[in-house]
Amino acid sequence: MTIHEIAEWLGGEVIGNNIENAPPIERVAKIEEADSGSLTFLANPKYEKHLGTTQATVVLVSRKLDIKNNIGRASLIFIRVDDPYVAFLRVLKRITPTVELFIPGIHPTAIVPSNATVGKNISMGPHVVIGEHAIIGDNTKMGAGCVIGNHAQIGSECILYPNVVVYHQCKIGDRVILHAGAVIGSDGFGFAPKADGTYEKIPQLGIVAIDNDVEIGANTTIDRATMGDTHIHCGVKIDNLVQIAHNVVIGEHTVIAAQTGISGSTKIGKHCMLAGQVGIAGHIEIADRTVIMAQSGVPKSIEEPGKSYFGYPADEARKAQRMYIAMKMLPAMLHELTTLQKKVTELEKKLLEK
Amino acid sequence: MTIHEIAEWLGGEVIGNNIENAPPIERVAKIEEADSGSLTFLANPKYEKHLGTTQATVVLVSRKLDIKNNIGRASLIFIRVDDPYVAFLRVLKRITPTVELFIPGIHPTAIVPSNATVGKNISMGPHVVIGEHAIIGDNTKMGAGCVIGNHAQIGSECILYPNVVVYHQCKIGDRVILHAGAVIGSDGFGFAPKADGTYEKIPQLGIVAIDNDVEIGANTTIDRATMGDTHIHCGVKIDNLVQIAHNVVIGEHTVIAAQTGISGSTKIGKHCMLAGQVGIAGHIEIADRTVIMAQSGVPKSIEEPGKSYFGYPADEARKAQRMYIAMKMLPAMLHELTTLQKKVTELEKKLLEK
Amino acid sequence: MTIHEIAEWLGGEVIGNNIENAPPIERVAKIEEADSGSLTFLANPKYEKHLGTTQATVVLVSRKLDIKNNIGRASLIFIRVDDPYVAFLRVLKRITPTVELFIPGIHPTAIVPSNATVGKNISMGPHVVIGEHAIIGDNTKMGAGCVIGNHAQIGSECILYPNVVVYHQCKIGDRVILHAGAVIGSDGFGFAPKADGTYEKIPQLGIVAIDNDVEIGANTTIDRATMGDTHIHCGVKIDNLVQIAHNVVIGEHTVIAAQTGISGSTKIGKHCMLAGQVGIAGHIEIADRTVIMAQSGVPKSIEEPGKSYFGYPADEARKAQRMYIAMKMLPAMLHELTTLQKKVTELEKKLLEK
Repeated sequence: MTIHEIAEWLGGEVIGNNIENAPPIERVAKIEEADSGSLTFLANPKYEKHLGTTQATVVLVSRKLDIKNNIGRASLIFIRVDDPYVAFLRVLKRITPTVELFIPGIHPTAIVPSNATVGKNISMGPHVVIGEHAIIGDNTKMGAGCVIGNHAQIGSECILYPNVVVYHQCKIGDRVILHAGAVIGSDGFGFAPKADGTYEKIPQLGIVAIDNDVEIGANTTIDRATMGDTHIHCGVKIDNLVQIAHNVVIGEHTVIAAQTGISGSTKIGKHCMLAGQVGIAGHIEIADRTVIMAQSGVPKSIEEPGKSYFGYPADEARKAQRMYIAMKMLPAMLHELTTLQKKVTELEKKLLEK
Repeated sequence: MTIHEIAEWLGGEVIGNNIENAPPIERVAKIEEADSGSLTFLANPKYEKHLGTTQATVVLVSRKLDIKNNIGRASLIFIRVDDPYVAFLRVLKRITPTVELFIPGIHPTAIVPSNATVGKNISMGPHVVIGEHAIIGDNTKMGAGCVIGNHAQIGSECILYPNVVVYHQCKIGDRVILHAGAVIGSDGFGFAPKADGTYEKIPQLGIVAIDNDVEIGANTTIDRATMGDTHIHCGVKIDNLVQIAHNVVIGEHTVIAAQTGISGSTKIGKHCMLAGQVGIAGHIEIADRTVIMAQSGVPKSIEEPGKSYFGYPADEARKAQRMYIAMKMLPAMLHELTTLQKKVTELEKKLLEK
Repeated sequence: MTIHEIAEWLGGEVIGNNIENAPPIERVAKIEEADSGSLTFLANPKYEKHLGTTQATVVLVSRKLDIKNNIGRASLIFIRVDDPYVAFLRVLKRITPTVELFIPGIHPTAIVPSNATVGKNISMGPHVVIGEHAIIGDNTKMGAGCVIGNHAQIGSECILYPNVVVYHQCKIGDRVILHAGAVIGSDGFGFAPKADGTYEKIPQLGIVAIDNDVEIGANTTIDRATMGDTHIHCGVKIDNLVQIAHNVVIGEHTVIAAQTGISGSTKIGKHCMLAGQVGIAGHIEIADRTVIMAQSGVPKSIEEPGKSYFGYPADEARKAQRMYIAMKMLPAMLHELTTLQKKVTELEKKLLEK
């Protein structure tokens, strides 16, 4: 694409000299790695320093940027847009040669029982197995080896990467992405202790319900409810190797990073952010817009929305940070305490002598 | 079912008025969510307060409960049983419409070599692959895509959900449940460092042995032993995404929650409870009936049975709790210590002046 | 094998009495479990005490060991070698009956498109699916159910255990081992927040590149880069259930234990050792030969190579250990601080009175 084509397509404004002689844009790159023929972007002010040295042909910048003071090289061309990062992503997507991941149609080795309902324009890879009475929506794509249980429902325009397992009766909305090896609807971990110290399995008779526009990472596991449903609300994004226990509810547009685990019957609010390797206790509630920092362990409910938490056990981030800073001083404090003890004993002795 | 039918089936005693006109029981529900036509239960005294407001038609209660003082609504009907929760589970299981998960017989796409031994009344889903010389017991069910290695043995009445992998030679007992994506018998993580800083793979020639009545969660991994076996004793329950390293031994009826990891050659006793995201060091022993609380890290052996542990590094729970409470006071302690230092210096000065 | 055959094969020296009448070696075992007919080894001086009681027929020992002082039983036979453990592994491997894991040839149920390139002497199990234009090197073995994406490349002499998924375009070198359920090339976890609190998926258009001689554990997940590659350099060993995020780089011969997670764009140096359940923040760099102890959380770059780190948040191991020791004294410190406060108040009062 030429620079003018890109600018027009993005609704941006071109600024620079000698634009007609600039090379066509063939690649995108990070500002510090870009070369001639590359388009890059500047969103974070921290990276402004690279404007003087970048070899990029074009830089996407915010309309708010004062270009006069920032033009590093005379030959650098700018396109001003509302959101340089989002614009960059659009170009990235358009410029990257696409690999067709899914072959249209139902592969002859896929197993689809006659009582299943399969929508239009499906892509179903080799060795996919669809359960009895299952329903698959229009335009949904499934990689090789996916297994959909009996009476399960998958919405429209979903993408299931290879070897995903959806257990019986679970319900998945539209435009949901499930990455390879994800397991949806395995039994909740419920056992009633018996008098002899052994355990009786508690039947797990509920389902998992996943709403629209959810993305679930590779090898993540979401357990079905004992009764009712484990519910992942719309727009939730879950990373790889996350564990969601039975009867958990995740509110809309909450984001959960890799290896985090949420124990049974806990309710996470809307628009929360849980970083990696976080653990959340069972039967508690986390308020909307809560942020939990990496590796934190949350033992009890968080009632006030919009706060950040950190630590093991987790506390409000400001408190926790003060605590962890003080912790580093502990050996010095211990030493100082011993010194003070001696001084006070000495003082007591001296005072007695007077 | 009518109320009298349920009571008779459970061996319980009906108490209440106007039982003949009560609606038939069509659902089960939690006490706070139950409506007319629902059966619920009361096991935990904390929930007694709901007796006054529940809309349930029937509540299962303990024979020990003093109903006189507890009847909230005149129309509420009780069935007294020995264990209300266990009775509730029985009703739940009976009342829930069952979905047949496994189709009887061996699916024509399953691969079963002629030298494998397959028991009676098997259900083997599409694309299952059985290894050479493998043995599968009677009444065992396997979902689509399970792969059983050469010379592996699976007992009777087992359930393997889709895409489980059991490596060669591993031995699995009777009534074992393996959830989707579980991997049994992958190589232990053993590498001998060489003089040049690279690693030589140590052959992992042992197996995994899983005894009767074990349940293993989705995407959990259990490594084969270097020599001998990684041994999961009978009745053990393991949740999702748990890592069991090579040569680990888990004692009978121990329960391990999600995302916990146990390092190589460690022995866990009987009837232990390991909560979620716990880490246990290698080459140590954990005594019987030990409880390890969530996210704890256990660096060394625990010799006395029946104690609770907590923290990173883990300590006896009472000690650890005192420590974590004190930790929260650290910033205040630091402040107080500085104040004391000043006061003592002041005192020393004054004493000199006198 | 006879003892002389073993010694000759290992290039070792036999020391002992009555060697001709010793039983042939049929097994290998740990020194404390060995019986007659077993070969064992002594590498760690801690185990020298077992020389007096072991029932082994032969012990492999270092040429440096002073056998005179160590012969426990007159009938014990030694073979002196350069490295007893490595020699033991060689015997272990030779003496263990091998199970053929992979059947030569391409199973008739495997799907190989005509535009894929498949090398010589391949073993491809049932229901394997090879992508369009994929390339598979010579002598590579794949268990049942593996799925290789379009345009992906797998090198020579690789072993892929069952149900491995390699996404489109990813590149895997020679002699790489991928354990069951591993997922290579799933989308990085990247979402741009929109003004309305929802998220826009950032296209993940890069790949995963895995160099030669890497081993990846069961159900481990490695995400593809946003642009460019997530790069696992040669000789790296990764255990089960590990999460490697997008654009991470792992340096040569680094070892990563189970359930560790590395956040996006972080660079881990060469010859590092990351223990289990470690978490590493995003966009940081870890110097070569760094050791991170189990469950530690590393929030920022480590610049000096060759140091050990520990704790949450991680600190240099010696500092961290001092801190954690002091932490255990916290309740006592709190008590002592209160005592001192009282004493100082008392002193202040007394001094005023004088």
